[in-house]
Amino acid sequence: MNVEIITIGDELLIGQVVDTNSAWMGGQLERENFRIMWKTTVGDDEAHLLDAVDRAMKRAQIVLLTGGIGPTKDDITRDALCRYFGGKLYFSEDVYENILRIFGISGRAMNPLTRNQALVPDACTVIMNLQGTAPCTWFERDGKVLVSMPGVPYEMKWLMTNEVIPRLKNVFSPDIFIRHRTLWVNGFSESALALKLERFEEELPPFVKLAYLPQSGLVRLRLSARTDCEEEAGRSVDEQEAKLCSLLAGHIFAGEDKTPEVALGDVLLAGGLTVGVAESCTGGRIASLITSVPGCSRYFAGSVVSYSNDLKRKLLGVQERDLAEHGAVSRVVVEQMALGAVGLLGCGCAIATSGIAGPSGGTPAKPVGTVWIAATMQDRVVSECYSLGALREPNIARASNMALLMLLGLVNGQDGCQ
Amino acid sequence: MNVEIITIGDELLIGQVVDTNSAWMGGQLERENFRIMWKTTVGDDEAHLLDAVDRAMKRAQIVLLTGGIGPTKDDITRDALCRYFGGKLYFSEDVYENILRIFGISGRAMNPLTRNQALVPDACTVIMNLQGTAPCTWFERDGKVLVSMPGVPYEMKWLMTNEVIPRLKNVFSPDIFIRHRTLWVNGFSESALALKLERFEEELPPFVKLAYLPQSGLVRLRLSARTDCEEEAGRSVDEQEAKLCSLLAGHIFAGEDKTPEVALGDVLLAGGLTVGVAESCTGGRIASLITSVPGCSRYFAGSVVSYSNDLKRKLLGVQERDLAEHGAVSRVVVEQMALGAVGLLGCGCAIATSGIAGPSGGTPAKPVGTVWIAATMQDRVVSECYSLGALREPNIARASNMALLMLLGLVNGQDGCQ
Repeated sequence: MNVEIITIGDELLIGQVVDTNSAWMGGQLERENFRIMWKTTVGDDEAHLLDAVDRAMKRAQIVLLTGGIGPTKDDITRDALCRYFGGKLYFSEDVYENILRIFGISGRAMNPLTRNQALVPDACTVIMNLQGTAPCTWFERDGKVLVSMPGVPYEMKWLMTNEVIPRLKNVFSPDIFIRHRTLWVNGFSESALALKLERFEEELPPFVKLAYLPQSGLVRLRLSARTDCEEEAGRSVDEQEAKLCSLLAGHIFAGEDKTPEVALGDVLLAGGLTVGVAESCTGGRIASLITSVPGCSRYFAGSVVSYSNDLKRKLLGVQERDLAEHGAVSRVVVEQMALGAVGLLGCGCAIATSGIAGPSGGTPAKPVGTVWIAATMQDRVVSECYSLGALREPNIARASNMALLMLLGLVNGQDGCQ
Repeated sequence: MNVEIITIGDELLIGQVVDTNSAWMGGQLERENFRIMWKTTVGDDEAHLLDAVDRAMKRAQIVLLTGGIGPTKDDITRDALCRYFGGKLYFSEDVYENILRIFGISGRAMNPLTRNQALVPDACTVIMNLQGTAPCTWFERDGKVLVSMPGVPYEMKWLMTNEVIPRLKNVFSPDIFIRHRTLWVNGFSESALALKLERFEEELPPFVKLAYLPQSGLVRLRLSARTDCEEEAGRSVDEQEAKLCSLLAGHIFAGEDKTPEVALGDVLLAGGLTVGVAESCTGGRIASLITSVPGCSRYFAGSVVSYSNDLKRKLLGVQERDLAEHGAVSRVVVEQMALGAVGLLGCGCAIATSGIAGPSGGTPAKPVGTVWIAATMQDRVVSECYSLGALREPNIARASNMALLMLLGLVNGQDGCQ
């Protein structure tokens, strides 16, 4: 089944909000063999929205909308859909009850604008949004389905998971089976990897595709099989994944679509290990990544962000002499930071970073983008210097990934495929 | 001038990559009075790409593409554009020189796939991409412009800033002047705020729009004026902004489009203050936000993530007795954490968080989403308990925002508009 996602809101066009909804929806739908073919974003403009809806209803079987159904004047989706599908608005007691319940929970005062959210088109099926006040609406026409959901990410996610995807699976049987495998690869540029895999790609069956997704110093490889035979889809990605693992042994640090922080958490948990972090240039990003994983308290000991040399000395026991002689961005200091984190935080493993994230602070000998990273486990310490780029945000993101992977490699004994 | 952005790649459709490029581009273009009207995402599929390009060339004056110009087989943009605009590919010595230069810098080995990136359509103007190997290409037809850029964010940003926007400004004079003002508002739900501003909205001139952008516990209000008179656009948003500031006095913590971390950094810098952070449930996010701001080393002292009670005691001096009596998620503990951070990190101000981010760890008395936050400056300490939701990621994001704002309010003496 072909799906089109339409996201609605001026804030998405003028860049005040990054649309994370549609990526999440895409991931969930593909797992259920719905194929996302188009995404469209329009502003808070009824004519543009209706044009996008009409085009989507012509080229897709399933059309999913997010946004524009809040209580304020710039929210135009409900009325536009009422016009497109015909009929009129009515006051739904059920929706009103849900709004009262939501307000009871959050203790905010009721107001007429919120009450108006209980007005819904009579041409649709209303799906109760138990996470918020704006109802989800489900329209059908000519065997096609359009669903309008709130733009608030956690409301949309709850609706998709609990209502929309189960209902779509009831209405549509899959006409194609989609299987993806993702492998995270370290140590190659995108083009060097493509060259290494040239022959592998030539030998792929026509219904299997390989995609390269560079991300903060790593490349994610994605194998996708799309065929009308479920067994063939599963078998072919299994086979090709096994080939890739043997071609890239030692460079694949995670199968499935595991981020570095999830992959690291899994091996720490499996090994009964704990981790602490001492961050300078990454400024808390590594701790933030590690703690973004639910359940991390079982292996995350804690972290220190020591921007200043003072704190590096005082908290992590970095030697004054080494700071003076080698500078904070050096192998000896970053290794002392990692070992200091072990002592301070009482953890079995530690990661440390010290570098120049930019945009300023570089010198001819240590330009912006120079980052030392160390990892330690028991009595072993490894460290390496990376030359990243000129931009702060990608430098922080890349150094954080490299640091997580360095420890992952150390814990894994540099094993390949998992 | 109306602009359409087309982003290309299966990874965007199936949700393996969140498209952050188009939001950034939208923000930059609006500042220069180019109006983004549509965004479209298509996969690595030539027919879909050509359909999207053709539609965009019909309805927009400017069409900007990102993605699909890497060295690998799934990169189809260049060849599709060559077909759409006619002509053929030729080998550009200039592009080849740039590729050699890039490889010289990064020290990677040259390979034939990368060399092929020097093949460019003869129907376009080539714009050198000094940040990467894939060239930017500029096509014109019937007074309209299409530009194809790499999808790698820092390459695209460099090209937009240094090449594409300046060239677009040379080709097109603005036919409309767009002025935005953003105000960050704390202490209202979206609908309560809309109700408070109902009359204000009714009295807005027809060419001024107000939008509500809820974000992690805050609401960003955006005033937009779009008119053909530059002076009127500027004057009207100034006037309406002043009205909003008086209506919402005490609730507006930042004008312009300043995130909480940028607003806090500005007042700390202005006051010659330094900040330290002691995080439990936010797990490093607050430090990561503060250090995402270039130049933060002038006011950021450092941070500790103390997930365990042990570290709260050992590093931050939290009293054993209070942990036992009140639990880690309590006013007394979070205040001790903030004061402990001041002592440990040697900073003038500090923020601390202690809560239950979820999904597990809640109790009937302290359900998931319970978060205590404290801020301290000199001898003053403030703290508050928030009841957030059931989901880990939004809880961390919201608690981090609330913590930054609590200190901002303390430093500002709870002033309103800045």
